[in-house]
Amino acid sequence: MNFRDLRINGQRLKSTIEELAQIGGTPGGGMHRLALTDADQKARDLFVRWLGEIHLEITIDEMGNIFGRKPGEKVDLPMVLSGSHLDTQPFGGRFDGILGVTGALEALRVMRENRMETRRTVTIVNWTDEEGTRFSPAMLGSGVWAGRFDRDWAYSRQDVQGKKFGEELERIGYRGRAPARKWPVHAYFEYHIEQGPVLERIGKRIGAPKGILGIRWYDVWVEGKANQAGPTPMDARNDALVAAAEMVLRVNELPGKMGGNMVATVGEIQNSPNSRNIIPDRVRFTVDIRSWDDNLKKEGAEELEKEFAAISKRRGCPVRMELIWDIRHTVFDPSLVRRVEKTARELGYSDHSMVSGAGHDAAYVNEVGPTAMIFVPSIGGRSHVEVENTSWEDCEAGANVLFHCLLQSANE
Amino acid sequence: MNFRDLRINGQRLKSTIEELAQIGGTPGGGMHRLALTDADQKARDLFVRWLGEIHLEITIDEMGNIFGRKPGEKVDLPMVLSGSHLDTQPFGGRFDGILGVTGALEALRVMRENRMETRRTVTIVNWTDEEGTRFSPAMLGSGVWAGRFDRDWAYSRQDVQGKKFGEELERIGYRGRAPARKWPVHAYFEYHIEQGPVLERIGKRIGAPKGILGIRWYDVWVEGKANQAGPTPMDARNDALVAAAEMVLRVNELPGKMGGNMVATVGEIQNSPNSRNIIPDRVRFTVDIRSWDDNLKKEGAEELEKEFAAISKRRGCPVRMELIWDIRHTVFDPSLVRRVEKTARELGYSDHSMVSGAGHDAAYVNEVGPTAMIFVPSIGGRSHVEVENTSWEDCEAGANVLFHCLLQSANE
Repeated sequence: MNFRDLRINGQRLKSTIEELAQIGGTPGGGMHRLALTDADQKARDLFVRWLGEIHLEITIDEMGNIFGRKPGEKVDLPMVLSGSHLDTQPFGGRFDGILGVTGALEALRVMRENRMETRRTVTIVNWTDEEGTRFSPAMLGSGVWAGRFDRDWAYSRQDVQGKKFGEELERIGYRGRAPARKWPVHAYFEYHIEQGPVLERIGKRIGAPKGILGIRWYDVWVEGKANQAGPTPMDARNDALVAAAEMVLRVNELPGKMGGNMVATVGEIQNSPNSRNIIPDRVRFTVDIRSWDDNLKKEGAEELEKEFAAISKRRGCPVRMELIWDIRHTVFDPSLVRRVEKTARELGYSDHSMVSGAGHDAAYVNEVGPTAMIFVPSIGGRSHVEVENTSWEDCEAGANVLFHCLLQSANE
Repeated sequence: MNFRDLRINGQRLKSTIEELAQIGGTPGGGMHRLALTDADQKARDLFVRWLGEIHLEITIDEMGNIFGRKPGEKVDLPMVLSGSHLDTQPFGGRFDGILGVTGALEALRVMRENRMETRRTVTIVNWTDEEGTRFSPAMLGSGVWAGRFDRDWAYSRQDVQGKKFGEELERIGYRGRAPARKWPVHAYFEYHIEQGPVLERIGKRIGAPKGILGIRWYDVWVEGKANQAGPTPMDARNDALVAAAEMVLRVNELPGKMGGNMVATVGEIQNSPNSRNIIPDRVRFTVDIRSWDDNLKKEGAEELEKEFAAISKRRGCPVRMELIWDIRHTVFDPSLVRRVEKTARELGYSDHSMVSGAGHDAAYVNEVGPTAMIFVPSIGGRSHVEVENTSWEDCEAGANVLFHCLLQSANE
């Protein structure tokens, strides 16, 4: 048999995704499987069972990252790695992260059933807490593994209820013994939905991102003075929500003001005491700034700081901005990116060179070894929502590209 | 003994307020005793015990309003009524509502210990759910009693967790048998903290409001399109929070734009899905507009509707405004208001004619019979907050005014 004619099993990939979608699935057809919850635990249990069924060597590290190894002929050579994450956004979709894990699983299943041997070891990975919704910042699992974050700092991260990452990891039984520490990687491929509208708009099937936008995350606190809404004259108010509303608009206007490649978003806001007839005295909101240009991103953040300070002064509402995450733009390995493009064309799929607006574990793995990603179209450009969707044909196509990229790198 | 020289017991009034402050008290020195919660139940139990100790005839109606009657010589004559409410705002203060209930209780205690008989029956009342924070609109208890709201509609009101007013009333054991239906009232006095800065600023001890500003409450829903914050270009967004932020600013600017006597406030906002890297697709916020001029209030609301529609169109974010409460400005009974002013002066207290910016049960009782209020200063004008405060001297002064106003009306 000529391995070049081999294809993954699209029907099995679909069933695998659908079975995972039962765990933490929402009535609206989406997923609600936040990191280190009971649902995350169940999804991990199922994943580990699947790894066992194809006789992979399973390792769980101190961060709960799960690895399944198919040893190569030369076990001492740096390995080929592929995967993504099984945690999801609140009321998110069935594909974000999951497609990359199940795509790599499908590739390894095909290798197993065809008794394929590779020169290098091929390893599948499920990274812990990629989304960063419950425990911030995002990509904690790959971040610690790559040496970006300290393990104990990660353990101390708290969710909104004050529960700690380390304790929740222990609770669901996925605090492993293996050190969460990088090892030599020959190639890392992460297969993922695009999460944007580009591929669909231009009618291409496979995206080959040359890298990922840099990201800055801030938490912002605004203070006001609470008072009864009725008897307090307008000119005697320090309304924290009014000040925050102005700031939200400044964030939205920032990309237009700065020019160049940038997006900026306020996704989260909490207001206190949040009562209809009390002037708000405490607002917390988040700021997310992304750009391919790290300097522009920095200048944008400085501009916001200035504007926030002016609003704060004018409204008598003290403001505090805390930088909680800053990651430079990521440039993937050009030869691996070319491999993705070339493989797509060889398999008869249209391809497109682009950038990724979303952060991925690939950003951290890229610091350890050569990395590339494979994108497939998101219907309507929608993601992080229940209606997030990708056609099964596209899912299959991307998994075929992944499979053949893995084979090529594993046999180098 | 000349009853005109009688005074209430300021020390006992203080102890009573302090004992009530134990139930639902916060570490910050405030109160968190929302309507129909376990804390509200405990406060009611204590209140009923106190009514029993001075042998009042206790009635609890279908809305949980608690009445304690001291029968007069002529029980067929319309009675004199006084009270306020024991529920509080979230992290509110120890005086709002509570002072009016304990002030009336203190007046009745003095009558009891001096074996005073009055021509008319004197009744104390604790109205249910004045604050309207948990079950909206505010003043549900007095509103149903006065015939403004339907009882079953009130029962169907839900809190944010979907719990119904009627079920919660039943749960805490305060769904009484007596119909919640108005009866002839000769005079209603409600004693209350000012909740604004006026009395303190001008150095007066007793405020005699000529009425209450009209109030309109809206719930506003804004819809957007959720998407991943990174890969979604700024020009492809329908960001519900950005649209809502513009609307919050329009509400804040409204009083300046309309001129005249008006305040406007957004006190409450909920954002969804409220995740740092997802563009918001659903925001709900509240609008509170108040004016002494009912037409101006209506015109202000119409102006907002127009501005919201323009923002909605420009940003592609559908908006829906639901009017959930509209109460005209209240004009209290001029002869009772004069009685408050005259009594204050006779007792040696400085007095001031003013209006009330906050809504009170007195607004509904005013539709049933002659009504007036007695205000004492709020330190720093602060209320609905934990630091809400009024000096014990002022508490005592206001209670003396209430006591003597009640005596005069009850002996007519």
